[in-house]
Amino acid sequence: MRIFNFNAGPAALPKAVMEQAQKEFCDYRGSGVGIMEHSHRNKLFDEILANAIQNFSDIMGIPETHSVVFIQGGASMQFAMIPMNLAIPGKPMEFADTGTWSSKAIKEAKLFGDVKVIASSKEDKYTYIPEVSEMKVDEDAAYFHITSNNTIYGTQFQSFPECPASVPMIADMSSDIMSRKIDVSKFGMIYAGAQKNLGPSGVAVCIIRKDLAERTPANVPTMLRYSTYIDNNSLYNTPPTFGIYMFGLITNWVKEMGGLEVLEKENNRKAAALYEAIDNSDGYYHSPVCPCSRSKMNVVFRLPSEELEAKFVKESLAAGMLGLKGHRSAGGIRASIYNATPFEGIERLTEFMAEFKKNN
Amino acid sequence: MRIFNFNAGPAALPKAVMEQAQKEFCDYRGSGVGIMEHSHRNKLFDEILANAIQNFSDIMGIPETHSVVFIQGGASMQFAMIPMNLAIPGKPMEFADTGTWSSKAIKEAKLFGDVKVIASSKEDKYTYIPEVSEMKVDEDAAYFHITSNNTIYGTQFQSFPECPASVPMIADMSSDIMSRKIDVSKFGMIYAGAQKNLGPSGVAVCIIRKDLAERTPANVPTMLRYSTYIDNNSLYNTPPTFGIYMFGLITNWVKEMGGLEVLEKENNRKAAALYEAIDNSDGYYHSPVCPCSRSKMNVVFRLPSEELEAKFVKESLAAGMLGLKGHRSAGGIRASIYNATPFEGIERLTEFMAEFKKNN
Repeated sequence: MRIFNFNAGPAALPKAVMEQAQKEFCDYRGSGVGIMEHSHRNKLFDEILANAIQNFSDIMGIPETHSVVFIQGGASMQFAMIPMNLAIPGKPMEFADTGTWSSKAIKEAKLFGDVKVIASSKEDKYTYIPEVSEMKVDEDAAYFHITSNNTIYGTQFQSFPECPASVPMIADMSSDIMSRKIDVSKFGMIYAGAQKNLGPSGVAVCIIRKDLAERTPANVPTMLRYSTYIDNNSLYNTPPTFGIYMFGLITNWVKEMGGLEVLEKENNRKAAALYEAIDNSDGYYHSPVCPCSRSKMNVVFRLPSEELEAKFVKESLAAGMLGLKGHRSAGGIRASIYNATPFEGIERLTEFMAEFKKNN
Repeated sequence: MRIFNFNAGPAALPKAVMEQAQKEFCDYRGSGVGIMEHSHRNKLFDEILANAIQNFSDIMGIPETHSVVFIQGGASMQFAMIPMNLAIPGKPMEFADTGTWSSKAIKEAKLFGDVKVIASSKEDKYTYIPEVSEMKVDEDAAYFHITSNNTIYGTQFQSFPECPASVPMIADMSSDIMSRKIDVSKFGMIYAGAQKNLGPSGVAVCIIRKDLAERTPANVPTMLRYSTYIDNNSLYNTPPTFGIYMFGLITNWVKEMGGLEVLEKENNRKAAALYEAIDNSDGYYHSPVCPCSRSKMNVVFRLPSEELEAKFVKESLAAGMLGLKGHRSAGGIRASIYNATPFEGIERLTEFMAEFKKNN
């Protein structure tokens, strides 16, 4: 039985990518040793790094004004690095608070200056994304920060707010990066922990407008300065080479699949099929999320009782579907359907949902 | 032809470990997906993490007073985290400066308080480790920091200094951790980037005395506080799961090999054979390092000219030996012979050295 993996992250990686990595694990391109045993300063890794950045830039349409760098510590480290580098004394850091990850980013920013939350759905248990046209960013803000997709609550920005030209918009796209077309030039910075759409855990990818890296105060340590990564092409110290290698393979795969246009269509089709199964269940399954904010990456839904949810998780696992249990802080069911989840996985899940409803 | 890998890091990993990881890469223990696709909060990873910490504690003899945590960013991130967490206003941070990595640690510490270098071999191009009995640590120092092995200059502490009881000794053991028996209880903290003796790049292992984590000032961000890692068993955010899995496999391998006693003997035998080949070459090969400070992990040596060194690197590569070129800042030849380098690798190298000398 083929297993389908609905983990929220670390998550399913494309089957073809996993198989290629396995094949060359102990002998990369006839070198006699694995890529993780090679120096990060040799030609083989140089090529991997250059290819990964080039592919990613092509796929995402990253303009020359921005750099792509790899930083350890995941998105959580970025919650601290961003204010550490980009806060400006006397200017507020502004946020949209749309869930757990936004809140964590806000908490870290408060260590470095004044924080202003200009939009929030906290009072409504984060069940929607506040109207973006009503997000009024102050012209003197140091930056404006959003979380484009909320893994835990299953919400996603369907479009992005407009910021004053003087204010860089910064987005944590950990869970929906490279899943749809976006206009990178509208953002001062985009960052993402790799372990959803980009590869294994242990590396965050940051797309940062080069001029922003000049803001960093002199007392910020070397490893926590964006300029260190930009100036050294992410090779100031030993990077997580295997993670970057996997990221590179995934960008190859995205290109082979036809790029973001094809992937976005497929992601739309997957999400539509799953939400349809929820909406057409006569209320047996129901989504707590406002339809206008539904995530195409993390589909959360509830059953009539917690007992049935537990049973659903248990039986779905036996039926070859991993990771359907909702986040420990939210409960319910969550199907994470990132790029690597094939449509067959959605079919298996919706068939199971119909069967489970009939039997329970 | 079997390839022997003398890279300084990322470096050779044990062949048996690489083969096991390859075998279960796409299907970990019959789960149908690879370990890097599993959640860091499921039972499979819990077991990996617990086993890795237990093995490592057993092998190293880590006392109950200390915690083992995994932090991203390598040793370079520790250069900043240590003073950020452990500096005490008005008290000096003291260092032995024995090479490039010590210097980098010193540079970052200066951002957080007064630094005092109490021993240095800088004036002599770092060709030896200053006499440890003459390292006089002040009783009111915040901590005393050493680099136990210097990958670039090929020197190694053969024994460790005594610190006043009030001062924690902190050691960067990136390049010789788990290669010999040490008394962990003498150290307030030991840290190491994994990519030499412990696994792939992308994770640093820290052994830290629990009470030290209480020093951290309130304004240090969550991801940069040692207590975050201790209190959450390295699971505050998504850790580099695949790196920790590889680290766990390596600790299994060390136990199977017979533990540190056996490994240390083998490392001594390997280093002795290689230094003997250098010393018995009638000066054709020569070590720039003081015999009393020679590293058993990174054996650096010179040839009569830089031209011959370039030729040596080129021909050794063709003869199946990777990574013998010295560090870009030091030149010459460097053979990194960590735990995973088998004695056969030393035999191949010394035979090649004899042959090369005869022909050149």
